[in-house]
Amino acid sequence: MVDWFWRRRRGVPAPRLRSREDALPTARIDLHEFAPAPAEFLARAAYVQLAVFEHAARAAALVHATEAKATIALAAGVALDRHRALVELLAARGADPVAEMERVRPAIDRFLRLTEGRDWVEAALTCHLAGGFLDDLFVALADGLPRELATEVLALFAPRADPRYLELFTRAMEDNTRLAARLALWGRRLLGDALLVARDALAFSDDHRSDEARIEPAFSELVANHTRRMDALGLAA
Amino acid sequence: MVDWFWRRRRGVPAPRLRSREDALPTARIDLHEFAPAPAEFLARAAYVQLAVFEHAARAAALVHATEAKATIALAAGVALDRHRALVELLAARGADPVAEMERVRPAIDRFLRLTEGRDWVEAALTCHLAGGFLDDLFVALADGLPRELATEVLALFAPRADPRYLELFTRAMEDNTRLAARLALWGRRLLGDALLVARDALAFSDDHRSDEARIEPAFSELVANHTRRMDALGLAA
Repeated sequence: MVDWFWRRRRGVPAPRLRSREDALPTARIDLHEFAPAPAEFLARAAYVQLAVFEHAARAAALVHATEAKATIALAAGVALDRHRALVELLAARGADPVAEMERVRPAIDRFLRLTEGRDWVEAALTCHLAGGFLDDLFVALADGLPRELATEVLALFAPRADPRYLELFTRAMEDNTRLAARLALWGRRLLGDALLVARDALAFSDDHRSDEARIEPAFSELVANHTRRMDALGLAA
Repeated sequence: MVDWFWRRRRGVPAPRLRSREDALPTARIDLHEFAPAPAEFLARAAYVQLAVFEHAARAAALVHATEAKATIALAAGVALDRHRALVELLAARGADPVAEMERVRPAIDRFLRLTEGRDWVEAALTCHLAGGFLDDLFVALADGLPRELATEVLALFAPRADPRYLELFTRAMEDNTRLAARLALWGRRLLGDALLVARDALAFSDDHRSDEARIEPAFSELVANHTRRMDALGLAA
């Protein structure tokens, strides 16, 4: 039953997600003009991945079932691999990764505190929904980076579709309508916190009014993708 | 292996491990005749690595300093990489990794509960001391596996000496003699829990009295290595 998962690295084609989830992300999100300098972008993306790693690792520690534990630990590994790769890109540019990450920490630390969740399923949902939202954000911002760097970053953020991970939620919610209602609220809560992290990641110009008008369509798309993710899990947004 | 990460402090030479730590492990530990069947060995080693991962990830989440967080997260990544590789070896032999890990969980779950530690520094020390002890154990048991598998396992358990990780402790203990005393006690505590996990990993024969006599020298060596690790950190054993 978990066969595919363990064999993925040996060349067996990755399994397909459900059709609704397959469609994600839909529209191209344009935020390229708000991309910060490469070092800031990389440091923020690296620290966000460390935050997603922390949430996933906590969920893996909290869940009892062996299969769920292993599945969530692998998701933590994906975030950690990305963190490592982003820090490497940063160091390769001659930047001091620790100093750069320190500069961008506050908004992400706040996000971490607020989105911890009260049990493994909330923590795991944070990784899927807020992690997915922030992936979309960094992919959109990457368009504004120097081309070669953008290509490397986009390769790192290639879809991490893992149907086993999504099944953890559908299985947990089976015969538990109260959990579904709680997770729907949690998913809605996460959006606000993710939006704050997103705003903090943008390099605004001096013309704030014009900036707000220009980011509006992109943020609408980020929210729409979030709603689609909720929807794919059967959570009312 | 993580060289890139430490490049940020240009010009400052990487700190060297102290010579005593460099010398680890010393004697060859002979437990080959107590090696369990390959699937059990792999499942136990895989689940132990998941446990080390959990402790390291928790320490990374608890510590505030960015550099320490990143260093500990990388150590969590090493454990997770090994977990993944061991699970792959298990799946490659046609075993069901989840079912096999479930069989060996109880002693390791107990170990996890008892060795959680009250803060990041205790949790991080658990990974170094108990993790190191269990590495020695699995390396010694691997000698009793079929040769090809033993080679693959030994490659996975190649030394992971990371001077930055050890420096976390020496730096935390600087000007804090109470912490040094607390960590010395914690290190002593960990040994008992690690020894229980070790005993549980052995395939005993029907002749218990003879078994006990035969494991005694190997266990003495495991304990001696533990003492050397404590000593290298300046912790009185």
